[in-house]
Amino acid sequence: MDLLLTGSRTPLADLTTPALVVERTLLEANLEKMAAVLPGTRLRPHVKAFKTTALARRMAELGHTGFTCATVREVEGMAAAGLGADLLLANEVLDCRRLGAVVDAGARVTVAVDSQLTVDAAGAGGVGEVVVDVNVGLPRCGVEPEQAGALADYARTKGLAVRGVMGYEGHLMLIEDPADKARQVEESMVKLLKASADVGGDLVSAGGTGTFDVNTWAGEIQAGSYCLMDTTYAKAGAPFAQALTLLATVISANPGGWFVADLGLKALGMDHGNPSIEGAAVWYCADEHTVFSADGAHFSVGDRIRVSPAHVDPTVALHERLHVVDGDVVVETWDVDLRGW
Amino acid sequence: MDLLLTGSRTPLADLTTPALVVERTLLEANLEKMAAVLPGTRLRPHVKAFKTTALARRMAELGHTGFTCATVREVEGMAAAGLGADLLLANEVLDCRRLGAVVDAGARVTVAVDSQLTVDAAGAGGVGEVVVDVNVGLPRCGVEPEQAGALADYARTKGLAVRGVMGYEGHLMLIEDPADKARQVEESMVKLLKASADVGGDLVSAGGTGTFDVNTWAGEIQAGSYCLMDTTYAKAGAPFAQALTLLATVISANPGGWFVADLGLKALGMDHGNPSIEGAAVWYCADEHTVFSADGAHFSVGDRIRVSPAHVDPTVALHERLHVVDGDVVVETWDVDLRGW
Repeated sequence: MDLLLTGSRTPLADLTTPALVVERTLLEANLEKMAAVLPGTRLRPHVKAFKTTALARRMAELGHTGFTCATVREVEGMAAAGLGADLLLANEVLDCRRLGAVVDAGARVTVAVDSQLTVDAAGAGGVGEVVVDVNVGLPRCGVEPEQAGALADYARTKGLAVRGVMGYEGHLMLIEDPADKARQVEESMVKLLKASADVGGDLVSAGGTGTFDVNTWAGEIQAGSYCLMDTTYAKAGAPFAQALTLLATVISANPGGWFVADLGLKALGMDHGNPSIEGAAVWYCADEHTVFSADGAHFSVGDRIRVSPAHVDPTVALHERLHVVDGDVVVETWDVDLRGW
Repeated sequence: MDLLLTGSRTPLADLTTPALVVERTLLEANLEKMAAVLPGTRLRPHVKAFKTTALARRMAELGHTGFTCATVREVEGMAAAGLGADLLLANEVLDCRRLGAVVDAGARVTVAVDSQLTVDAAGAGGVGEVVVDVNVGLPRCGVEPEQAGALADYARTKGLAVRGVMGYEGHLMLIEDPADKARQVEESMVKLLKASADVGGDLVSAGGTGTFDVNTWAGEIQAGSYCLMDTTYAKAGAPFAQALTLLATVISANPGGWFVADLGLKALGMDHGNPSIEGAAVWYCADEHTVFSADGAHFSVGDRIRVSPAHVDPTVALHERLHVVDGDVVVETWDVDLRGW
């Protein structure tokens, strides 16, 4: 599917603001750059970053046929879209009945476990395949590495297939010095490989956009943010283009020197800080407003501006649609169809 | 409509987590307390805080028949729900065509203006009524008070009806000392009343949950958060109960002393800080996880817990449904049907 050949060709100027906008050529360049480094199933794209099956389908066309999900809804939506060949829910779930229904409908679903209760839940829900989630240094989910083998044994006694291990070195994604990052990723992955030796199975799944090129220990990388990108990953040196921006309208100008755009923190993931506007200094975001002053650029009421979010994942999750643009034309509009729970 | 008489009676335990949960009795108490202080049209409830027409309908039944909106979508949704008797869009809009369509369909829509361009947009879009938005001290939208009269004159020359003024003293909502708050609100409202004298019209619209009881200068108060509440308003002394919580599941426990719940910053408005969990210390929120340690309470994997958000408005906007509960039973499930743009 060529993005140019499908969908309508609405003028960008006709979009209601705020609107999620993706530059087609930058998105394609990001997808191709990643596929060159991590071809085929070396990448298991994480759909949590974009929550859009149309974009996942483009990745599958490039050869990435296995996907990572963070929620049950994402698993359901990917399977319903015909992208359920190999879905890894990289998260612990205590009620797996909806996942079991997806398996019954013909998709392959593997769920992360880090306790006997999550193993029991997988079995009770009808999910036959698990990976052991291992704590590789980020204080979140995951068994301690030395406990991984015992949990795998427990799962097997319960009749589950154990496909291997996963671990997310999320605390290392934004290290700027490449040598320091490589050293710390190695330390983290040594833990995962130790667990893998005890657990068995083929899968060693880890990583993200921040470590895709230095994590050479994992068999597959769970990156998602690379395709749309955000200013935080850009500052940390991730070699991908900022394909995603928000289109907004300047709705107010004050003689005191500030301007107001019609998007606020209900349209922006704020956990990595304020968004960026070229030629402007952002003062703050309120629910429906971003207040900024000019810093090199000229702004007037009615101007359409582009706003770059600091964190892509929660930003996309706030929007119903993602508009793919080429110059001043919307060439496709994708439903952000994996939102919710 | 009595909340007990409609909807299903699902056990709370059957809800998928994370889920927005509202305690029926606390919600009713909040609604009644506010209606006692600000009866009828003295309150113009702000739907941005809850984005749910079913809840707005309950307010209309209590006598609050005019509503405040922050987005065009909110205006459209309220009108479609039959709640369009008097909708004030308390925000500047440069493309008013969709608002004009709502007017054509029979609703009453008034839009805020703070520039000639926004006046022109109202006229071009077919919105015949405006209020002049006045800067009362919060650096955001609004003309300077001394410019309000001239803008009203301009609007009238363009054939628009000017209903009055509005101004949001948002910078004063969280002042804890009542005397200090009252003094600063008065200073702020003196500006609005000066503008009102120049502008004319009946409406003097201002305020919010943080100033509903001290802002005795405005003719109507635009409060919304009071009905569901959040921990920030609670800390600031707003006399309403925390009716809204998030139901979550503990999905992981680590021997290092931390627990993980299955809701993160994609389920929580984070701009006022971390959420609260009774008997726990919250460490941080990631996209799909909240990590915490026990601080008085006992937690185990599989436990259902309640999480109190720090900011209600952006939290509700992240969810599709709002479950009204009475004890362990879901007595109604409301669509959060005013989301998006």
